[in-house]
Amino acid sequence: MANFQRLTPRSEDYSKWYNELVVKADLAEQSAVRGCMVIKPYGYAIWEAIQAELDRRFKEKGVKNAYFPLLIPKSFLSREAEHVEGFAKECAVVTHHRLKNDPNGKGVIVDPDARLEEELIIRPTSETIIWSTYKNWISSYRDLPILCNQWCNVMRWEMRTRLFLRTAEFLWQEGHTAHATKEEAEDYARTMLDVYADFAENVMAIPVVKGVKSPNERFAGALNTYCIEAMMQDGKALQAGTSHFLGQNFAKSFDVQFLSKENKYEYVWATSWGVSTRLMGALIMTHSDDNGLVLPPHLAPIQVAIVPIFKTQEQLDAIMAKLNPIADKLQQMGIRVQVNTSDKYTPGYKFADYELKGVPVRLAMGGRDLENGTIEIARRDTLTKETISIDGIEEKIQSLLEDIQRNCYQKALDYRIAQTREVNSYEEFKEEIKKGGFLLCHWDGTPETEERIKEETKATIRCIPLEALPGHTNEPGKCMVTGKPSAGRVVFAIAY
Amino acid sequence: MANFQRLTPRSEDYSKWYNELVVKADLAEQSAVRGCMVIKPYGYAIWEAIQAELDRRFKEKGVKNAYFPLLIPKSFLSREAEHVEGFAKECAVVTHHRLKNDPNGKGVIVDPDARLEEELIIRPTSETIIWSTYKNWISSYRDLPILCNQWCNVMRWEMRTRLFLRTAEFLWQEGHTAHATKEEAEDYARTMLDVYADFAENVMAIPVVKGVKSPNERFAGALNTYCIEAMMQDGKALQAGTSHFLGQNFAKSFDVQFLSKENKYEYVWATSWGVSTRLMGALIMTHSDDNGLVLPPHLAPIQVAIVPIFKTQEQLDAIMAKLNPIADKLQQMGIRVQVNTSDKYTPGYKFADYELKGVPVRLAMGGRDLENGTIEIARRDTLTKETISIDGIEEKIQSLLEDIQRNCYQKALDYRIAQTREVNSYEEFKEEIKKGGFLLCHWDGTPETEERIKEETKATIRCIPLEALPGHTNEPGKCMVTGKPSAGRVVFAIAY
Repeated sequence: MANFQRLTPRSEDYSKWYNELVVKADLAEQSAVRGCMVIKPYGYAIWEAIQAELDRRFKEKGVKNAYFPLLIPKSFLSREAEHVEGFAKECAVVTHHRLKNDPNGKGVIVDPDARLEEELIIRPTSETIIWSTYKNWISSYRDLPILCNQWCNVMRWEMRTRLFLRTAEFLWQEGHTAHATKEEAEDYARTMLDVYADFAENVMAIPVVKGVKSPNERFAGALNTYCIEAMMQDGKALQAGTSHFLGQNFAKSFDVQFLSKENKYEYVWATSWGVSTRLMGALIMTHSDDNGLVLPPHLAPIQVAIVPIFKTQEQLDAIMAKLNPIADKLQQMGIRVQVNTSDKYTPGYKFADYELKGVPVRLAMGGRDLENGTIEIARRDTLTKETISIDGIEEKIQSLLEDIQRNCYQKALDYRIAQTREVNSYEEFKEEIKKGGFLLCHWDGTPETEERIKEETKATIRCIPLEALPGHTNEPGKCMVTGKPSAGRVVFAIAY
Repeated sequence: MANFQRLTPRSEDYSKWYNELVVKADLAEQSAVRGCMVIKPYGYAIWEAIQAELDRRFKEKGVKNAYFPLLIPKSFLSREAEHVEGFAKECAVVTHHRLKNDPNGKGVIVDPDARLEEELIIRPTSETIIWSTYKNWISSYRDLPILCNQWCNVMRWEMRTRLFLRTAEFLWQEGHTAHATKEEAEDYARTMLDVYADFAENVMAIPVVKGVKSPNERFAGALNTYCIEAMMQDGKALQAGTSHFLGQNFAKSFDVQFLSKENKYEYVWATSWGVSTRLMGALIMTHSDDNGLVLPPHLAPIQVAIVPIFKTQEQLDAIMAKLNPIADKLQQMGIRVQVNTSDKYTPGYKFADYELKGVPVRLAMGGRDLENGTIEIARRDTLTKETISIDGIEEKIQSLLEDIQRNCYQKALDYRIAQTREVNSYEEFKEEIKKGGFLLCHWDGTPETEERIKEETKATIRCIPLEALPGHTNEPGKCMVTGKPSAGRVVFAIAY
């Protein structure tokens, strides 16, 4: 049941506001297992909408879903040298395969006789198990490309966890493709970046900067990591998706070669790309306000909530005679509607609940509306409401939903643009970074400089943008720290 | 790439036929991890179709999806006494959360300092973690019912595994509902059984017997287990889905009480129900033949394959000018079409591949067809083909697909009816059970008699049917073993 105690305002404590909102809006909660979350039905419905939209886009690009094992032999992780450094350390290790009754009668204990010969790791990501499989699937150029994706759970033993943003177990999709040429693989990694960016902007209403990671921030085992970076309402950056060009690293580690058209054996070229339930965190932190969740209509499980205000059954019947045809027509138009006639809760309670849960449009009709042929229509993003005639209400709602979608995006974009600024000296940088936002700065391209900046300010290079950000140009200059040449400005920020 | 070496015929070795078919039709394969399978894209596409159909049916019954943790604290399993006996024994146990570099330089080893305080189990089923969560969700009758489902992976450390039928890791859905009254919970368990039966018969084209499990075969922790039982082509039974009435067992184990309308604290009533990737095994074994997979059209990832037969690009262009409009129209009608113009493979190779993969309808057009305005249409279930005019071909295909769907079901039903017989003496039973099939017998209702029969013949009671099977009546009688009274005939069989 919803809890309408006021949320801590964002201005007071952004982090607390987020934690409270996730729980109160029924999105997720901590479980009995440290660092693992329960995704509640309302939160999961949003994730399902995300999945459906992404899955359709993947399939349009020729991707097919498959499923690979949860457990990975420990030795696989050592095969790719960089990969093991990045992923093998904090992970869940399965060492035994049986419990037995405690001889002292206290529940169950691990059976020491059921120790595995080789320990198994719960996948933190699946490059290794997938490339060990691709070895059997690929022998000739005819078998390429392979464009597979899986929707699954993964686990990374994080010490400090936050719902959706950083959890030990999370849900994600991971695409893994195999190609005959370097060019094709690089193109595909870029194609999937574009899919992510399109999805983020047009479905999630989150403006993103497309870019390339600096070597320090690259995926362990990748030659190049493309990313989309978003800005949250506290001015911090959130990496919303990554697409990696893996070169031939995994093909070499797992000896995956193919016979080319020219009858030569060559190593296969690879990409991998993924987004996770972290997107839920980005969605919440981009749009929501001190009253609760704000959802862009394209992802809202309920787009329109309809609440009759009644005292007697007779009055309810009369109101529903007007509201039911509206609900039916909206549904026929493909709009997700919830009609709430429950007498368990008051209309005031229902309004507060829909507000907390970010339902984009709320309709209410009472006795006076019934007499006047009107209806109250409230929009969540602006918190405005008006009373209008019910004539042609369905078309008005349809266009209102698109307005709200656009407004969510524009508001977030305006904020990001206002919080993005060019900084030219390191002194200025140290002051500016405290205010948050994206700082566009020249950097000499060395890991040493990047590390120094990170140590001294906690800021990291979020990406080297693929194109200039709106209102900015991208020309060569001099590193703000060392004065050495810089090819163009990169995006610095404090990141989630 | 498909491998067209002939399958072992079913009559020669049914089990070998199955194993070969699963691999050759690109459905699944063994992975590098013992007992865990890789579900290949073609197999996964069928699973996705199964998921979509079931998920829609669940949602029509008010079910909402959610997600609960993969890992379960060991102590949770001991809470429900019967449950721990049934599930806690053969399972994957996580004992550590970190690897480290081997000081001897040989890859990575488990870090002994990262031992967990309490071991975690990879879920074999989620009643315990879910009821520990429901405790926080339920305080009043207003919070009930809760109707949740999750699609996820589970793990049971099976010693002898077979692709889809019995694997250590498998995919499934598990529904878990919470109710205020016993009646409502029992009704819901029955409702979900009906959903499963409807899905099995109308989508998978698998006739099933709805029934109740004997106490020996009940789910660990249930008061009653409802099931649907199917018969494979070798006369063995396969349990295709179960729905459990759990009473108040889990509510009591996890102390989940609610305040009723009458202002009294009461324990919550529960159900759980699930089907798994095992259904893939049932699908394959019900319909397929010595030439490969046979898929009922409702689940076929490709319903119609279209193959032009050409020698020159000019000829291909002319043929495609006829075939493309047909493909477009079929797609507009909602039919899943694959047009195969690839020149990597010959038409003969393509035909064999579509046959192996069970594509219900195959169209082919060559030079002569082009002149005559005809097309060759082949159906997979009967292996027949004919050359017909292309006029109105789309409507013919639509009705042919429905014919094939019905024929798959009818063929399986005829087989089951032919292999179902009443047996009245235990001597006869011992002979008849060797021939396979469902034996309808009187049983005295005791676990002792059931166990004796199982030990002596390997047959188990598949279910106590809810209604008489077609062509049979269900009257009281005398147990074939002990001569004691029997309420009605039950279904015995050798089971997968």
